[in-house]
Amino acid sequence: MINKDLLALPEKAGRVVKDGEFPFAAVGLSHGHIYGMCDGLIKAGATLKWVYDENPALIEDFRKKYPEIPVAKSLDEILCDKEVKLVASADIPSKRCPLGIKVMESGKDYFADKAPLVTLSQLDAARDAVRRTGKKYAVYYGERLGSECAMFAGTLIERGAIGRVINVIGMGPHKLANGEKRGEWFYKRETQGGILIDIGSHQIEQFLYYTGNRRATVTSSRIANYSHKEFPEFDDFGDCNLLGANGATGYFRVDWFTPQGVKPFGDGRTVIVGTDGYIELRKYTNIGIEDVGNNMIIATNDGVESLNVTGKIGLPYFGQLILDCLEGTEKAMTQEHAFYSAELSVLAQNGAVECDR
Amino acid sequence: MINKDLLALPEKAGRVVKDGEFPFAAVGLSHGHIYGMCDGLIKAGATLKWVYDENPALIEDFRKKYPEIPVAKSLDEILCDKEVKLVASADIPSKRCPLGIKVMESGKDYFADKAPLVTLSQLDAARDAVRRTGKKYAVYYGERLGSECAMFAGTLIERGAIGRVINVIGMGPHKLANGEKRGEWFYKRETQGGILIDIGSHQIEQFLYYTGNRRATVTSSRIANYSHKEFPEFDDFGDCNLLGANGATGYFRVDWFTPQGVKPFGDGRTVIVGTDGYIELRKYTNIGIEDVGNNMIIATNDGVESLNVTGKIGLPYFGQLILDCLEGTEKAMTQEHAFYSAELSVLAQNGAVECDR
Repeated sequence: MINKDLLALPEKAGRVVKDGEFPFAAVGLSHGHIYGMCDGLIKAGATLKWVYDENPALIEDFRKKYPEIPVAKSLDEILCDKEVKLVASADIPSKRCPLGIKVMESGKDYFADKAPLVTLSQLDAARDAVRRTGKKYAVYYGERLGSECAMFAGTLIERGAIGRVINVIGMGPHKLANGEKRGEWFYKRETQGGILIDIGSHQIEQFLYYTGNRRATVTSSRIANYSHKEFPEFDDFGDCNLLGANGATGYFRVDWFTPQGVKPFGDGRTVIVGTDGYIELRKYTNIGIEDVGNNMIIATNDGVESLNVTGKIGLPYFGQLILDCLEGTEKAMTQEHAFYSAELSVLAQNGAVECDR
Repeated sequence: MINKDLLALPEKAGRVVKDGEFPFAAVGLSHGHIYGMCDGLIKAGATLKWVYDENPALIEDFRKKYPEIPVAKSLDEILCDKEVKLVASADIPSKRCPLGIKVMESGKDYFADKAPLVTLSQLDAARDAVRRTGKKYAVYYGERLGSECAMFAGTLIERGAIGRVINVIGMGPHKLANGEKRGEWFYKRETQGGILIDIGSHQIEQFLYYTGNRRATVTSSRIANYSHKEFPEFDDFGDCNLLGANGATGYFRVDWFTPQGVKPFGDGRTVIVGTDGYIELRKYTNIGIEDVGNNMIIATNDGVESLNVTGKIGLPYFGQLILDCLEGTEKAMTQEHAFYSAELSVLAQNGAVECDR
């Protein structure tokens, strides 16, 4: 049996500020991730003060979920509101960086959905704006930060539960259509960035985090369009190999081939192998067993345990982010980790071998 | 729900010859795989006529399982026995090829444990001997051929159950010590070949088979010795990327880090993604759920099914191999598939990047 102290749950994440202490705005609603971002902030105590998008239809949808939230007349109205501390955005990927720079230049912190940017010149501009303004360009890598089992895995690794991490395999399959209509931007390289940037960035962030690497190399990467030829620029498949500066290895596969028989958007998995054991995460479904998320299996020399941590961990990232903004700390995530994950994603995409198109 | 006809079980593999119609010998008992090889042949009707090894201790162990089997005085005694149709061997990997050439030159077919050879010059010699003698150099890639769920996966792919196969991820973790003492040869590159040859060859064979490729490229490979520094030549980790001629992609990880808490020798998995669904094999344990092998999960647009096929498929490879020997066919496996899997394994090992040593 694995020692119970080793598997002890941390205190569940809760509110970190009182009502009105951390007003924020939602700007750029193109991707549904904006809901997870706003929900997470609100649960941690933040106050959603404004919403804005150039597209009135997206605002209308947003207000079905948040009917009370005032609609700003323009982005400027939000940027001029001195009370607003942070702007959250799930705009079209290629627009996330220019928006973020404006937000930071207005003296507010910025919180972008992943991928936070789609080119190396955007990355340079974003890094420069952070240096100039002293503000944050936080990134919501939701496949770890929005997953209770993924957060708990980080805790167990820190406790040394599986020894030195030597390999991480990430599987990030997704449904192309899950009741959600995709905009034209989704199928274009210039606006979406490509699969290794779009959903690959989640995986790269997890590799760096779980292996404890500040630096790594993309040793090889591949993309393909196997069966969506009607969208010639679209990648329906991508994979990538990573080598961390500390010698840990990684591989991930991302794809848009999750069949309709699978209930959630994808059967996301992470397998983390250490020198003294391994952890498998079945994030969104325990496929073939039970349709529940947040499943973790841990195997060590002492035994094997299967846990479900739904509702037990919470999402500590959001409260930490709020406090980081208020206190100038980097407990939720360092700026460099957020940017470097994006940098490797762009490098992986730009250097990818085409397997089929 | 997935259509029942699609998932219909094939007729269970049984005996293909009568007692005495297919006498064979076991020569070279260094690896425990010899037992699976002999058992498989015997269940398909073959008759074990002789056993031989230079090491009397290995013969003694063998005769605990097969007490009735006569011990030959020498290899020559077996090679001169005209009744013997095939020699099965799980000798030290570097000795498998020289033995196989002698066997084929004596007019008998040869059946080697994987890896069947450890260098490209051995491969050249083996190919040449097959051409000269017209005999077979069959290879027991047991992680497919000895796994009922892995065999059934092949059937489902042939039926088109998941469409075109675009990616195969293999995880082949192993326990270093599972009640089994490893010989010195196991830790030496010259005799064992290296991890990508030893246990990587299983994975390469599966990739070629499931993706339907006769040719593929090793696009990158890595080895490491993370924490067995007392054996400086030993690889405790390896991984590899494959690109099939038809555009399908593959990755596998092999390692010797399976912790003692896991009951079988390793939590071997295969995840096969097609354009219309995917199959996951949990070959030796349904980790964290139930300690049974031969678990298959299949997800398609019609639903998800979880199957356990223990005792339902049998191991058709052995009967097919016997008939191939008797009838000159290649139904069990083509000679070229057996050799080419070995060729890519050697190329993967020889070209591997060292991540830690």
